[in-house]
Amino acid sequence: MKTVGVAILGLGVVGSGTYKILRDHREFYRRTQNIDLSVESVLEINRQRALDLGIEESKISDNIAEVISNPNVDIVVEVIGGVEPAKSFVLAALHSGKSVVTSNKELFCKYWHELEAAAKRTNAGLYFEASCVGGVPIIRTLLDGMQANVVTNLTGIINGTTNYILTRMAREGAEYASVLKDAQALGYAEKNPTADVEGYDAAYKLSILASLAFHTKVPLDKVYREGITDISSEDIKYGDELGYALKLLAIGKNDGNNSIEVRVHPAFIRKSHPLAAVNDSFNAVFLRGDSVGDIMLYGRGAGDLPTGSAIVSDVIYAATHSDVKYATFKNTQTAEKGVRFVTDFKSRYYIRFTARDKAGVLAKVAGIFAKYNISIIDLIQKGEDIENIPIILITHETSELSLRRAVEKIRELDDVFEVNSVIRVEG
Amino acid sequence: MKTVGVAILGLGVVGSGTYKILRDHREFYRRTQNIDLSVESVLEINRQRALDLGIEESKISDNIAEVISNPNVDIVVEVIGGVEPAKSFVLAALHSGKSVVTSNKELFCKYWHELEAAAKRTNAGLYFEASCVGGVPIIRTLLDGMQANVVTNLTGIINGTTNYILTRMAREGAEYASVLKDAQALGYAEKNPTADVEGYDAAYKLSILASLAFHTKVPLDKVYREGITDISSEDIKYGDELGYALKLLAIGKNDGNNSIEVRVHPAFIRKSHPLAAVNDSFNAVFLRGDSVGDIMLYGRGAGDLPTGSAIVSDVIYAATHSDVKYATFKNTQTAEKGVRFVTDFKSRYYIRFTARDKAGVLAKVAGIFAKYNISIIDLIQKGEDIENIPIILITHETSELSLRRAVEKIRELDDVFEVNSVIRVEG
Repeated sequence: MKTVGVAILGLGVVGSGTYKILRDHREFYRRTQNIDLSVESVLEINRQRALDLGIEESKISDNIAEVISNPNVDIVVEVIGGVEPAKSFVLAALHSGKSVVTSNKELFCKYWHELEAAAKRTNAGLYFEASCVGGVPIIRTLLDGMQANVVTNLTGIINGTTNYILTRMAREGAEYASVLKDAQALGYAEKNPTADVEGYDAAYKLSILASLAFHTKVPLDKVYREGITDISSEDIKYGDELGYALKLLAIGKNDGNNSIEVRVHPAFIRKSHPLAAVNDSFNAVFLRGDSVGDIMLYGRGAGDLPTGSAIVSDVIYAATHSDVKYATFKNTQTAEKGVRFVTDFKSRYYIRFTARDKAGVLAKVAGIFAKYNISIIDLIQKGEDIENIPIILITHETSELSLRRAVEKIRELDDVFEVNSVIRVEG
Repeated sequence: MKTVGVAILGLGVVGSGTYKILRDHREFYRRTQNIDLSVESVLEINRQRALDLGIEESKISDNIAEVISNPNVDIVVEVIGGVEPAKSFVLAALHSGKSVVTSNKELFCKYWHELEAAAKRTNAGLYFEASCVGGVPIIRTLLDGMQANVVTNLTGIINGTTNYILTRMAREGAEYASVLKDAQALGYAEKNPTADVEGYDAAYKLSILASLAFHTKVPLDKVYREGITDISSEDIKYGDELGYALKLLAIGKNDGNNSIEVRVHPAFIRKSHPLAAVNDSFNAVFLRGDSVGDIMLYGRGAGDLPTGSAIVSDVIYAATHSDVKYATFKNTQTAEKGVRFVTDFKSRYYIRFTARDKAGVLAKVAGIFAKYNISIIDLIQKGEDIENIPIILITHETSELSLRRAVEKIRELDDVFEVNSVIRVEG
């Protein structure tokens, strides 16, 4: 039986979960994988935290050089998060020929090319299943399960915090600010929620997933990004009436002809779409391949044990597979030459505005849309107050640019008090 | 670049799909996988069928020995189906050291141990993603994505034909026989539908999936099996009113203590369960791991290109991974010593019976259930005709044996005309 020594850098939520899984399944992996996975070293400043997990005194260190130079360590698990010091630690491990397993989406999304180049120099492995969608094996699926396909679409709910907030807003009719506060108290949102609620976390993951799905680097700065902070429960309610659920979607499209579209933003999707039923902190990714058609993977996108599951699955993969250690696309800092990123993307739109007088305004609004070649699918007028009428309309597919111009013109109408919301409609 | 020669045994639906994928993606695999996959030989009696696909005359053969002895062939794809001659062909390929990729669930389920032993003798690979749930990478997920977990539950809709029939019965209120006829005309059901509608196909797949999930052989004869031929649209309608959808479920449970339960039968599941929304010919598998929690994979379980996608993904995996070629559990003909298969399994039940007089009967029925320690969750009486009242009740969890005994006693009551249906309620 092969013995494999593991070091864990950081005993935060995911690090502790990873340690517990390795500790409690050692015999199970001996039996089912024929390998003996042994935690040989842990990098953690808070010694007590490590001792509380039952880690031997001699295996706890606050010195990265000591951890990496430990000859018993074969695989280094980085679960610190953020760019530094994680980046230096990962590079040091790779330089010394140790394989690295990481859950660090920000680091990976920004410096993947650099880390991969370092890994290749020493023939060390580099594994990152845990960086995207927690315990859901989406990266393994893209690499080893769907690799026969040209992937044309990727649509995901890949941030648990925002999905939790939007689900509760929909269920309770509550507003964003109050649900966020509650989510923070319950540990579903960070004290500083920016990375989640502004869509950065989803954009990191989309950059990684789209790079794998489309076989070319999709740099973070090419991902269009909008968060959920401006969403009102009123729009969720009106969307519900029209048969839609509101989700923060990560969308990747590839026309198969070097034209790629990547964006993260709130969107309405039909309730009959499988993603509409993905609620609370659950995540899901919907993929379309040219041979397999539509497939969906669903599960927990975060948490100590779900993310730990992905980490340990990567550790086992690293210990048992020697040929495939890196992504197969040309992993550079920018996309391959010839790849075009669509910015004026097409979508359907939900628009809510408040007007004084329905009949007069509608004729003018219809005229503006006609001028920009935008046709309207659905239009509803809500409420009784004829002095302050909310009007909701849903358009056919149109270009972002035309839509923005039309909305500007509507805003200028005398009888329109306010354009309250413009939300994309997908699927 | 590595060149890999492929032979395809049989150009039926899946064989033709596989050929088309390989033919149309050759350049794509060169670019994205750095391998050149070339179809070097095809075993097909119907030469014209092969020629119509554009296969060169010289590569078409009706002689298995010729195909296997071709030195350009590295990987043999078996898509003939059934036990013989597929088994002899696969064994011949393995004997000569060629790796085999198969979609043959019946062969694999019945002779996996024998095929694996033959493969190991020549160090040939043996891959079978396409044998279960078509294009959905469920086997890759069990082997390389969830392997850090003790899997305790596996619940799947893994037969497309029955799901198509049940979906249409639910939507249209139509009866089984008429929907089956239509499904046969449309190509969703075979002329002889037994393997699908009686649950054999699902049982084959469950035997394979449960063996992988639970790390011990789960022989076919341990899988309890019931089909959908006795399902009436009336029960689907009543279930719907009570908040349930009817599905042919494949269920595997492992208590982590060597006690395994495997069964295929129709069952009601709550509409809020993700599997309830899996309709038409779509398939899905719901898995529970001790670390990852619940995950679900959803997609097309059959068809030329979806199943071809799984075949070609296995071909690429076989061509690019050299270390892992077999399942890691002890693959013998029977389960490992100490494993116990539960036969008196527990479930909730939906029971419909027709009675003469409600009040009197209900007291007696309640008495019978009480005697067998079965408590009732829900009870509804349908219809107006007081001479012929359909009564539906749903029980709490009880053992199969107690339930059967109670139903026998109900059947014997003077005021009960008929016990029409007994259907399990899961989840």
